[in-house]
This record gives sequence, C-alpha cells and structure tokens, in this order.
Amino acid sequence: MTNPTAAMLVIGDEILSGRTRDSNMHHLAGRLTEAGINLTEVRMVSDDRTAIVDGVRALARKHDHLFTSGGIGPTHDDITADCVAEAMNASIDVRSDARAILQAHYDRQGIEMNAARLRMARIPDGATLINNPISAAPGFTIGNVHVMAGIPAIFEAMVASILPMIAGGDPVLSESVRIDRAEGDIAARLSELADEFANLSFGSYPFRQNGRYGANVVIRGIEPQQIIQATARLRAAFGDDAS
Amino acid sequence: MTNPTAAMLVIGDEILSGRTRDSNMHHLAGRLTEAGINLTEVRMVSDDRTAIVDGVRALARKHDHLFTSGGIGPTHDDITADCVAEAMNASIDVRSDARAILQAHYDRQGIEMNAARLRMARIPDGATLINNPISAAPGFTIGNVHVMAGIPAIFEAMVASILPMIAGGDPVLSESVRIDRAEGDIAARLSELADEFANLSFGSYPFRQNGRYGANVVIRGIEPQQIIQATARLRAAFGDDAS
Repeated sequence: MTNPTAAMLVIGDEILSGRTRDSNMHHLAGRLTEAGINLTEVRMVSDDRTAIVDGVRALARKHDHLFTSGGIGPTHDDITADCVAEAMNASIDVRSDARAILQAHYDRQGIEMNAARLRMARIPDGATLINNPISAAPGFTIGNVHVMAGIPAIFEAMVASILPMIAGGDPVLSESVRIDRAEGDIAARLSELADEFANLSFGSYPFRQNGRYGANVVIRGIEPQQIIQATARLRAAFGDDAS
Repeated sequence: MTNPTAAMLVIGDEILSGRTRDSNMHHLAGRLTEAGINLTEVRMVSDDRTAIVDGVRALARKHDHLFTSGGIGPTHDDITADCVAEAMNASIDVRSDARAILQAHYDRQGIEMNAARLRMARIPDGATLINNPISAAPGFTIGNVHVMAGIPAIFEAMVASILPMIAGGDPVLSESVRIDRAEGDIAARLSELADEFANLSFGSYPFRQNGRYGANVVIRGIEPQQIIQATARLRAAFGDDAS
C-alpha cells in the first residue's frame, strides 16, 4: 500500500495515570482508516515539555501527518501549542485572528476575556486555524502537524473539519470471518493464505466465548476482487466453523 | 517524585485500524498508579518487525520497566517474542519449560500440539516465564521488559501475577475537586497554587455538562498532609462552586 501514513500524539497526565480512558485514539483510527490514511504509530505522553517536543519532532519527521490531542486549554498544564511551536522551529504569540474568534465567542456569552483565556489565542506563526464549533478556542495545523483539543466532542468536531482537507489514499477495504476454532488450529492455513495473497493483510484476533476459543480473521487490502477471493478460500478451508 | 518509571508498548494492527479499542493501557495505568510506579509513556505500533524492535529498544532504555501487550499467539502475525529477543540481543527458541506447560494444558483438554501452538513456547534465553492461568501460553520477563498477551482477560491476569514482584514506590495519593466554573476562570488561581505546592501535581480536566463548563482538578502527590492543605485552599478559593 502506498497510502499516506499518520501518527498520533496523545498528551495528558490524566490518561497515563489511569484516571481518564482515552477515546480520541480509537475515534481517529476509525476515521483515518475510512479516509485511506494508515495510522501506523501512536504515542501517549504526559504534560511534560521535553516529552511533547521530542514526540512531535520524531513523529512529524517519520509520517505524512501527525495528529495531536490535548493540552490546548487555558490552564498552566496546557503547554501543547508552545511545545509544537518549539518542535517546528516556529515563533508563537497571541495571534489576532484567534483572539478575535475567542473575543466574539465570549462577548456572545457574556464571559470575561482574561489572561488565562488569552493563552488559547497563542498560535504559532504560519499555522492555519482549525475551527472549534463547540467552545471556539481553535486548534491549528502547522506543517504536517494537526493540533487538536482533548475533550472528545471537540476533538471529534476538529477531526471532521480537517480530514476533508487532507489527501487520503485508496480506501482500505476489509472483510471479517469468524472461525470457531482455536487460533492454534487455523494458524498454519492462515499463514499459507497470507503468503499467497501478499498484497492483503491477514489479522487474527482471538476471542473466548462460553469457554471456547475462536478467532476473527480480518482480511484487509485495496483490491476488492482479491479480498473476495481470499475470503472465499478462507471460508472453504474451515467449512462449518466459519461464519 | 523518585518513583520508578514505566512505559508500555501496545502491539497490534487491530488497534491502529480502529477495529478494536484497546483496554489494556487503561488497565495497566490504574494498576501502576496504585503500585507507585509512574507510567510516563505509551506507544502503539502495528505488527511490524522494525517498529516493535525499535520501540522495545527505545522504551526499555529510557524507563525502569517496559510492559508490552499483544502478538504472542500462534499465528503468523504474532512476532512479539522474536522481536523482543532481537531488541534485547538474546537468542530465542522453543524452550522446554514453556513447552511442558503448553503440552500439559493441551493434554488435559484433548487438543493436539502442532507447529503453530509450539511457536508459543518460543521464549528468549534468560527470560523468566509469566504465568497464564487462562490459556497456559506464558508471557515472559527479560531484563526490564515484561511481555504479555493482548487478550484483556489474560493481560490482566499476567499483570496481577507480576506486579507484586516489581518494586514500586511510594503510593501516589490524589484528591479530586469538582469546580463548576469554566477553566478560564480558575486557571490563574490554579497556577498560583501549583507554584506554591511545587511537590504536588495539579491537573485540570475540563468537562461540559448541561451546556455549562466545569473542571475536575486533581491534586496528586506523595505527602498526604500537603494534599489535604492544597485541597482546602482550592476549595476555599472557589467557595460554593467547589464540590
């Protein structure tokens, strides 16, 4: 596959302490797969300057796109925008376009603009704003790095607004076959099929149900005809145990 | 804090494609926090040899412990054990102790031992086995790397069996205060408190409920008296809006 590749950097102590369960990664993974973009690496780091800067640098260099979530709010632990600017060698300050968006939003709601809220208008030079339809404070894209909020509803809205602007690849198609046999019984045949259909990926995801083992085999690829053929061969190999 | 640090490497295409939502990271994060071990970095990579080897090397070097999940089953895409051996410069082959455990398990269940199942007895030289009370196929510890299965029930059982053997630190205590004001209104005061109580960490986790904003502030640290004091100051600062 020559589809574009993407990485994600999830930022926040609350995820790593086990207090909050991240849902943004799973959401982004699904949207990227639909768009034909291969998410190949995810990193989760704490609200730590060095960890964020190093993570952004490493992932932006290796992948066509990097998506970040978290750390762009008004409190002292929200340091993502400044870290991304540093990683991308950009200067950063309160930007008038972002400030105007926030001011209009607060005016409508009768909320006071203060120093903390003004921090959310800190945007690196050269970045493009990402619309936040929920609480106004924008995300931004700089180079191949897309910086988004951590609150899931806002993160998801931001993803929806930028994905159409990113060139995707051929959509990755998949077919799933449930096989009611233990993985150890299907592994040899599966390996042969994976060798034979080298353009497809065969994933085996074991499960246990009512004390018995089975596996969901997922065949993924870009060519629908190949997937249909491989799926038929897999079903034939396991007869009544495949569904 | 001088507590030990840990990283996690989650291995599997199914997580990155959005097909499966990982739950092992959240589980491990909670158990490590209870044990006084700071989970500071998580990476998720696909079933790719280079990605796994590089991830193990980088994370094992930087942290006191590395926990991996996924990729130790019998199918062709289960390459974790061989990759960990390569990353740790250990040789790997079917080991008699692991083979005996599997053979006894299959004999009890009347299941045939075949080449695919035998792959699960491939254990690096010098590794210690981790008990798998559910499906027998063991995990292992080599150096500071703990290699565990991806199926959540098995992963969780393996974590329970090795954590007592790992030296933890002082348990990290936390106190949570809900403040029914927007983050932008509490940020300045919170930042002052964070400066004043430099041994504690103050996390602010915004939420939206019934169209209004609030934040859960979590104060974490090792000294209970400091946490009690900081919590009282925070509550006093926001009066009726704190609960």
